[in-house]
Amino acid sequence: MSDASQSAPLRVVVWNEHIHEKQNAAVAEIYPEGIHGALAQLLSAGLPNAGVTTATLEQPEHGLTPELLADTDVLLWWGHLGHHLVDNRVVARVHDRVQQGMGLIVLHSAHLSKIFTRLMGTTCNLRWREAEDREVLWPVAPQHPILQGVKLPIVIPRHEMYGEFFDIPAPDELILISNFSGGEVFRSGCCFYRGKGRVFYFSPGHETYPVYHQPEIARVLVNAVRWAHQPAISDIPTDSSPESPVDWYQA
Amino acid sequence: MSDASQSAPLRVVVWNEHIHEKQNAAVAEIYPEGIHGALAQLLSAGLPNAGVTTATLEQPEHGLTPELLADTDVLLWWGHLGHHLVDNRVVARVHDRVQQGMGLIVLHSAHLSKIFTRLMGTTCNLRWREAEDREVLWPVAPQHPILQGVKLPIVIPRHEMYGEFFDIPAPDELILISNFSGGEVFRSGCCFYRGKGRVFYFSPGHETYPVYHQPEIARVLVNAVRWAHQPAISDIPTDSSPESPVDWYQA
Amino acid sequence: MSDASQSAPLRVVVWNEHIHEKQNAAVAEIYPEGIHGALAQLLSAGLPNAGVTTATLEQPEHGLTPELLADTDVLLWWGHLGHHLVDNRVVARVHDRVQQGMGLIVLHSAHLSKIFTRLMGTTCNLRWREAEDREVLWPVAPQHPILQGVKLPIVIPRHEMYGEFFDIPAPDELILISNFSGGEVFRSGCCFYRGKGRVFYFSPGHETYPVYHQPEIARVLVNAVRWAHQPAISDIPTDSSPESPVDWYQA
Amino acid sequence: MSDASQSAPLRVVVWNEHIHEKQNAAVAEIYPEGIHGALAQLLSAGLPNAGVTTATLEQPEHGLTPELLADTDVLLWWGHLGHHLVDNRVVARVHDRVQQGMGLIVLHSAHLSKIFTRLMGTTCNLRWREAEDREVLWPVAPQHPILQGVKLPIVIPRHEMYGEFFDIPAPDELILISNFSGGEVFRSGCCFYRGKGRVFYFSPGHETYPVYHQPEIARVLVNAVRWAHQPAISDIPTDSSPESPVDWYQA
Repeated sequence: MSDASQSAPLRVVVWNEHIHEKQNAAVAEIYPEGIHGALAQLLSAGLPNAGVTTATLEQPEHGLTPELLADTDVLLWWGHLGHHLVDNRVVARVHDRVQQGMGLIVLHSAHLSKIFTRLMGTTCNLRWREAEDREVLWPVAPQHPILQGVKLPIVIPRHEMYGEFFDIPAPDELILISNFSGGEVFRSGCCFYRGKGRVFYFSPGHETYPVYHQPEIARVLVNAVRWAHQPAISDIPTDSSPESPVDWYQA
Repeated sequence: MSDASQSAPLRVVVWNEHIHEKQNAAVAEIYPEGIHGALAQLLSAGLPNAGVTTATLEQPEHGLTPELLADTDVLLWWGHLGHHLVDNRVVARVHDRVQQGMGLIVLHSAHLSKIFTRLMGTTCNLRWREAEDREVLWPVAPQHPILQGVKLPIVIPRHEMYGEFFDIPAPDELILISNFSGGEVFRSGCCFYRGKGRVFYFSPGHETYPVYHQPEIARVLVNAVRWAHQPAISDIPTDSSPESPVDWYQA
Repeated sequence: MSDASQSAPLRVVVWNEHIHEKQNAAVAEIYPEGIHGALAQLLSAGLPNAGVTTATLEQPEHGLTPELLADTDVLLWWGHLGHHLVDNRVVARVHDRVQQGMGLIVLHSAHLSKIFTRLMGTTCNLRWREAEDREVLWPVAPQHPILQGVKLPIVIPRHEMYGEFFDIPAPDELILISNFSGGEVFRSGCCFYRGKGRVFYFSPGHETYPVYHQPEIARVLVNAVRWAHQPAISDIPTDSSPESPVDWYQA
Repeated sequence: MSDASQSAPLRVVVWNEHIHEKQNAAVAEIYPEGIHGALAQLLSAGLPNAGVTTATLEQPEHGLTPELLADTDVLLWWGHLGHHLVDNRVVARVHDRVQQGMGLIVLHSAHLSKIFTRLMGTTCNLRWREAEDREVLWPVAPQHPILQGVKLPIVIPRHEMYGEFFDIPAPDELILISNFSGGEVFRSGCCFYRGKGRVFYFSPGHETYPVYHQPEIARVLVNAVRWAHQPAISDIPTDSSPESPVDWYQA
C-alpha cells in the first residue's frame, strides 16, 4: 500500500447495456447520448480530476477487458433487458476485481444483474409497479460521506415504484429509504463491503424519467464514486494459503 | 443457566404513565382500562401461559420495585407527557435489569423516555406531525420471529406521523419500515441487543387512535414478548474483574 | 404461515463428503461411522423429537434430491477435498432452499464449499496452519440462543489453525471468536440471514481431531439446529413480480 | 453544509486525566510529557495541517470549555483512575458535541469513562489481567480507512490483557481483533456511529508499556482522526420538532 498513489487520477468506467435508448424514442429523448453518456457527463462535471469512460454490452467483451478493469477504480453498472446477455466470464472478471478492491455502483434495475446477485448471494428480487408514483428519499445515516452536501430529502416527482421486500442481505450501511406515494417503502441507498471492495446500490434511474438530470441525484453519484474509490488498496492477503510458522511474528 | 427454567411461566409487566387517559375523554373512550389495560389484555390473550401485570407512574416507585423487576422477564413501556417525572433511580434499576437479561419493549412516544435514550446513547429525536396520515408497515426481515404469523403489510388507517431522521444507533436488526401518506418513512420496528438484554422499539400506538385494538399489532406485540424473553439467562460474566491466571483453562 | 406446523417434527439432514474417513485410518478411528454419523448421533441425542438422516457425495445426486430437500428443515454441510465434485445443479437446489427458509449449518473446511461461497458472494478464503494449536472460543453475544447452556469459553486442546483475515461479509451476528495459541484470531461462530434462511458458520471440526466428540461442541450444534429451524416459514413474497394496483391496501 | 470548510485546518484535542504520570515514575519515564503529550506529538507529526492541543482533568472545566469543544473536530480521551472525577456537566457537553458531529477516539481504559458508557448504553465492562501478555491485533475489515497503510498484524510485545466478553453494543464496524498469549481475544478496534458523530474505540495504550511509541499504533491513530473528522457536518435536523405541512416537498 503506497500513499504516493493517492494523487493518481481517479479512473471511472460507466457500463450500460444501452438497449432501451435504441428501442424507445422516449428514452432516447431523455438520454440522447445514452444513459451511460449522461452518467459520464455528470461524473466528469463533479469529479474534475477523474478520467471517466464508458463501456456497453455490444462491445467486444462488453467493453470490459481484463486490461481495462485492472485500470478501473470505480465501475458503475446500469442494466435491465440484457442481464442474461452478459457473458459469465466478464461477470467473473468484475467480481474478482471487486474482491480486489475496485468500487462498484449498481443502479436501478441492475438489482437483478448477474454481478449484483452474485455479490449478494440472494435473489435480489423486489416488488415493482409502473404508475407515476412520487418517490421521496430520506436519510437514515447523517454522517455518511455519500450524503454529504446533498439537499435532503430527495424528491423524484414521477418514478417507477420499487418496494419491499427487497431480497438482499442486510446492508452494512443503510443510508437512504424511499417513500412512494402509492404506499410502499424501499431501501434505496445501500452500502456493502465485499472482499476488499465497496459496493453501493442506488435505486433511482428508471429509463423513462429524467432522474439522472436531477442535480441532487448527481451529487449522490459523485459522492458515491469518491466513497467507493480506495486510493491505496490494502495488501492484507485474501488468498487461501498456509500461514507461516508459529514464530512468524517474532521477526 | 438451567434448562429446567424453560418451563417457568413467562412474567410480563406493562408499564404506562397513565396520564392521557385521565386528561382526555377521547383517549379514555378508546382505552377505558388505560393503555396498559389494553396491552395487558391482548398479551394475556396471546400468551396463555404468561403472567401479565401492570404498573403506572403514580404508584410508589412507579410500581417498579426491585423485587418486581427481579421477577420480570419482559417489561413494556408506554410514556409521553411524563418522561421527566420518572425517577432516575427507577430508570437506573430498569437499565440494570436490561443489562442482566430482562427484555424491554419500548412503544411509540417512549422513544424519548429516559430508559430508551439511556440505552441508545443518542437523542432519539424524530420528526412528527399530527395529520391523520395512513401508515403502512413493511417487512424487511422475513425470517424474523417477531414477524411470524403477522399479516403484512400492516395498515394503520389513521395515525400520527413519525418520520426520519430518527436519531438512534443503527438497529442490530431492522425488521419494519413505515410509509406515511404524507410522504415520510420511519424505521418502525427495531431490535437492539444491549448487555444480556433484548430491546424492541415499535412505533405504533398514538393514544388518540385505536391502534392496539388491531389484531396484527397485537400479534407483533405477542411475538415481541416471546422474542425478548430469555428462559435461561447466560452466566457469561459481565462485571469488570481481573481474569484468573494464565493457565485458567487447563483446569 | 401456520401455527399448526410448529408441532411437526424437526427434519435434519447431515451432509458429508465422506472422503477423509475412507482414505485416512486416523480419521476413521476417530469417526468410525463417518463425520456425518457422529454428527447425526449427537444431534439425535440432543434433539429427541427430530428426525436426523445423512447424505453423502457418492450417493446419486449426492443424496440431496429435490424431494428430500423439500422436506428438510435444517441441513448441515461438511466438505473439504471434494468441493469441486459437487454438482452445480445440487448446489443451486440447496441455494434455492435456503432462500425459501431452510436452515444451513456450514462446518469447518466447508468455508470453501460451493454453497457457502455462493451464499456469501466473497472468496471465503482464510489463513491456516496445521500445527497442534490450542483453540479457545470466546462468546461476544451473551444473549444469543446458540450459546445458551454452553460452558464457555470452549477449549479445543489441539486443532488446525484458521486465522483472519477470513474473507466473508460482516456477519449479521458474530457470536464466537477464537484464540489460537500460535497467535491468531478467528471469527469462529457467524450467523447470516440470506433470503428467508438462516445460515450458521462454525469453524471447529478438523477431521484429525475428535472435536465433534466434545460435549460443548455438541451443545453448540444442537442449539444451532434449533436456531436455524423456522417452524413456520414467512409467506412474504420474494419473487420479482409487479405489485397490485395503487389501492391494494384498501381491500 | 459547505464544501469551502473542507480546506479548514483540522482541530484536534487530546484529553488525558494525567494522573498515572505524576504518581508512577515508571510511567513518567515512558511518557515524560504525559500520555497526552506523546499523543499530541505523534498526531502533529502525522497530520501536518492539523492543530493539535491538549487538555487535562486538573484544568478548570477539565480544559473542555464550551468554546473549545465548539471548535474541536476530533477529541481523543485517555482516562483510568479519575473517571469518577470528571464533572457530569462536561460529560454532557462532550456527549452533545458528538451528537452534533464531533469525532471521538476512546483509548484503552477509557472504556469505563463516563462519556463512553453514556454513548454505548451498556456497562462496557471487560475481563483483564496484568501479566505481560503479547498482544497481536488482526484486521477483519481490509477496506477500512483506519487500517490504510498500517503494517498488519500489529504486535505489542508486552501489554495488559483486555478480554471478552466486552460489554458493548455490536460495533457498527469491527475492524481489529486481538489475540493475547494468555489465551484470550478482544475486539480491539471498534467503530460506532452515534448521532452525527463517529466514535472509535481502540484498546491499546496501557500506561506502563511504551505502546504509543510504536509507529504502527501511531498510524492507526492518525488514520482514526482523519476518519472521525467530518469536514462538513450534515444539516439533517436531529431536533424533535413537528414536521412542516403535508405539502412540504412541493416547494
